[in-house]
Amino acid sequence: MPIQAYAAKAPKGRLESFSYEPGPLGALEVEVKVTHCGICHSDQAMIDNDWQFSAYPLVPGHEVVGTIAAVGAQVTGLKIGQRVGIGWQCGSCRECEYCRSGHEAYCAQERDTIVHHHGGFGERVRADATFAIPLPEGLDSAQAAPLLCAGTTVFTPMLHHGVTGNTRTAVVGIGGLGHLAVQFLAKLGCEVTAISTSHNKDDEARSFGAAHFIATKGTDELQKAAGSFDFIISTVPADLAWNDFINALRPRGKLVFVGVPESDLKLSAFSLIGHEKSVVGGRTGSPAEIATMFAFAARHGVKAQIEKFAMKDINAAMDRVRTGKMRYRVVLEA
Amino acid sequence: MPIQAYAAKAPKGRLESFSYEPGPLGALEVEVKVTHCGICHSDQAMIDNDWQFSAYPLVPGHEVVGTIAAVGAQVTGLKIGQRVGIGWQCGSCRECEYCRSGHEAYCAQERDTIVHHHGGFGERVRADATFAIPLPEGLDSAQAAPLLCAGTTVFTPMLHHGVTGNTRTAVVGIGGLGHLAVQFLAKLGCEVTAISTSHNKDDEARSFGAAHFIATKGTDELQKAAGSFDFIISTVPADLAWNDFINALRPRGKLVFVGVPESDLKLSAFSLIGHEKSVVGGRTGSPAEIATMFAFAARHGVKAQIEKFAMKDINAAMDRVRTGKMRYRVVLEA
Repeated sequence: MPIQAYAAKAPKGRLESFSYEPGPLGALEVEVKVTHCGICHSDQAMIDNDWQFSAYPLVPGHEVVGTIAAVGAQVTGLKIGQRVGIGWQCGSCRECEYCRSGHEAYCAQERDTIVHHHGGFGERVRADATFAIPLPEGLDSAQAAPLLCAGTTVFTPMLHHGVTGNTRTAVVGIGGLGHLAVQFLAKLGCEVTAISTSHNKDDEARSFGAAHFIATKGTDELQKAAGSFDFIISTVPADLAWNDFINALRPRGKLVFVGVPESDLKLSAFSLIGHEKSVVGGRTGSPAEIATMFAFAARHGVKAQIEKFAMKDINAAMDRVRTGKMRYRVVLEA
Repeated sequence: MPIQAYAAKAPKGRLESFSYEPGPLGALEVEVKVTHCGICHSDQAMIDNDWQFSAYPLVPGHEVVGTIAAVGAQVTGLKIGQRVGIGWQCGSCRECEYCRSGHEAYCAQERDTIVHHHGGFGERVRADATFAIPLPEGLDSAQAAPLLCAGTTVFTPMLHHGVTGNTRTAVVGIGGLGHLAVQFLAKLGCEVTAISTSHNKDDEARSFGAAHFIATKGTDELQKAAGSFDFIISTVPADLAWNDFINALRPRGKLVFVGVPESDLKLSAFSLIGHEKSVVGGRTGSPAEIATMFAFAARHGVKAQIEKFAMKDINAAMDRVRTGKMRYRVVLEA
C-alpha cells in the first residue's frame, strides 16, 4: 500500500505531497503509523543538501513517535499497536562487532532514516525492528518525539563519559538540544551551568534545572569560570572562542561537541596538555542507549518544551524552524 | 653547604659552572646526590626560554636518579642512601583536593624542578619528599633516568585512558618518548603500530615491540589505516595532518598529544562527532603513578636506550640533544 508523505523534490525545496510504494516489508522490519514527528536542524540540513549526500525526493523526519502498524515475518518482541520511537538510525548490518555488542551506532553499514530512505514526515515509516524502540508509559508522545534525536544526542555523551551527580557540568547553547541537556544533567544530580551569548534565557534555563548562568558576549563571565567544569557539552552550530571553554575545564575535563561549528576547531595543544583535557565528539546513541534514556526521562519527567503543528502545516512548521526562534522544538502531529 | 651545578646564565646560553647555597633543608624536603640525569627536550626549551618563564641562572635537569643525601626533620619513609628518582615536579601544596587524592600533578601550586628551582645538572638537588620516588631493585639507574619525564609522560595516558592488551594502539614519533611508549604498550599486551615519517626506524621500532610500521611521508599507508586504532599517542613536536590521524581512529578512539605541535591544532568537528572520537592532552604523572610505572618497567624490562655522557661534558651532551639524532635519550653520569 503506498505511503502518503511530504517530500522536498530538490535542494532547499518546499515540502510537497508525495506518495511512494515501500515494497514488501522485510522479515526483520516494522512499519510504524506516525502520530508525531519532531523537526530537527538536520532535517533542514538534509532538505538543503548542506552535507552533499541528500537524495530527492527527500522525505525528512527522524524524531518519530507512532504505533506499530505491521511487523515482518521474523520480528519478535514488538506487536501491532505498540507505541515506539524511531530516530536518526533505522538499520545496521546485525553482524559486525558493534552490532553484536549493542553499539549499532558505529556499524559501518549504518542506515539512516532520512538518508536514501524515506522518513517520518508522512503517515507511515519503516525501520529495522531493532531501531523501533518501545516508549515507556509515562512519556507523552509529542513531548517525547524530540528525545529521538535531540535527546539521545545530548544524553549519550553523559552515558559514555560517566557523568554522575558529582560531575561539574555546563551546557553551551540553550535551544532544542541544550534545554534537554540541562534537564538530563540536573536530574542526574549535577550542578549545571547554562552558557549562552546573552542572559535572555536565564530564567528559562533555571526552570530547566540550571543552577548558574554564564553569558559570553561582552562579559568576562566565562573567563572568570576558568577551571570550573569537568564536562561541557556544546550544542551550538556556531564558531565560538573554544580555547576559552577549554580554559573553563578542570583537570581531565572534557569539552564535548554535539553541535557542529561552521569552521574547523582551532585549539591550543598546550592548553589540552597542561591538565590533560579532552575535546570529544558526541552523537546519537544505539537502541539500548535510547531505551535507557526513555526510562530515565520517564522516571524524572524530562520532556521537550515544544510548539505543535499539524502535519498538513508542514511548511509553516519548517518556516518556524528556519527562524531558530522556536522554544524549543517543533513537533508535527498527524 | 653550597651545591656545585651547571647553569645557563642567559637564554640560549652555554652551561657554565655555578655554585649556589640551597639554604636550610625544609622539614618535608629531601636532598638527593645525583648519580644520573637524563636530558629532555624541555631542558633545552627552558634554557632557550621558549616558554617565556625561565629564570636565570637556570640549572636544568628533571630526569634525576640519585641517592638520598639528607632528609628533613619530618620526612618519613625515605632514608639516607636510598635510591630515588625526581622528575618534572618537585613540590605541591599538600592540601588541595588533588594533593589529598594522589593527583599532585594537578595542584594549582605545583612546583617544578627546573622552574624557579635548581634542577639535576649538578652534584645535588632538592625536592619535597613526596616527589623523590624510590626505584625498585631491577632498574638500572642510567636507563631508568629517562623514565622520570619521557617515561611517565607516555605511561600516564595509558593509565588514565585504561589501555589494556585489547586496545589497538599506535605511537607517532619513534624518539625519546616514542621508543618508550612502544615498549610500554607492547608489554601491556597491545598490538602496537609505530608511525614515523619514513621507514628508517622500522627495524628498531620492531625491536622495541612494534608489530607494524607506518611511514607517513609520500605514502598512503596512514590513509589505508583508516578506522584502525583506539589509542594513538603523538610524541612529536611538529605539525602533522592531524585529521588523517583522527581518521585512523576507531569509534570512540583517542588521539593523545604529549608532544606539543608548533601550531594550533586545526580539527574537523565533524570527524570527531561521527564516531565520538577524542583529542586529548597527556602529561607526566603524579608520584603514585610514577611508582606504578617504575614497578611495571622493572617487571617487564622496559628501559630507555641511551647515550651516556659524563656530567662534566654537559655542553657536548646538550649539543648532541640539539641535533635530535641521539638514539634515543642522552643521560649524564656523575
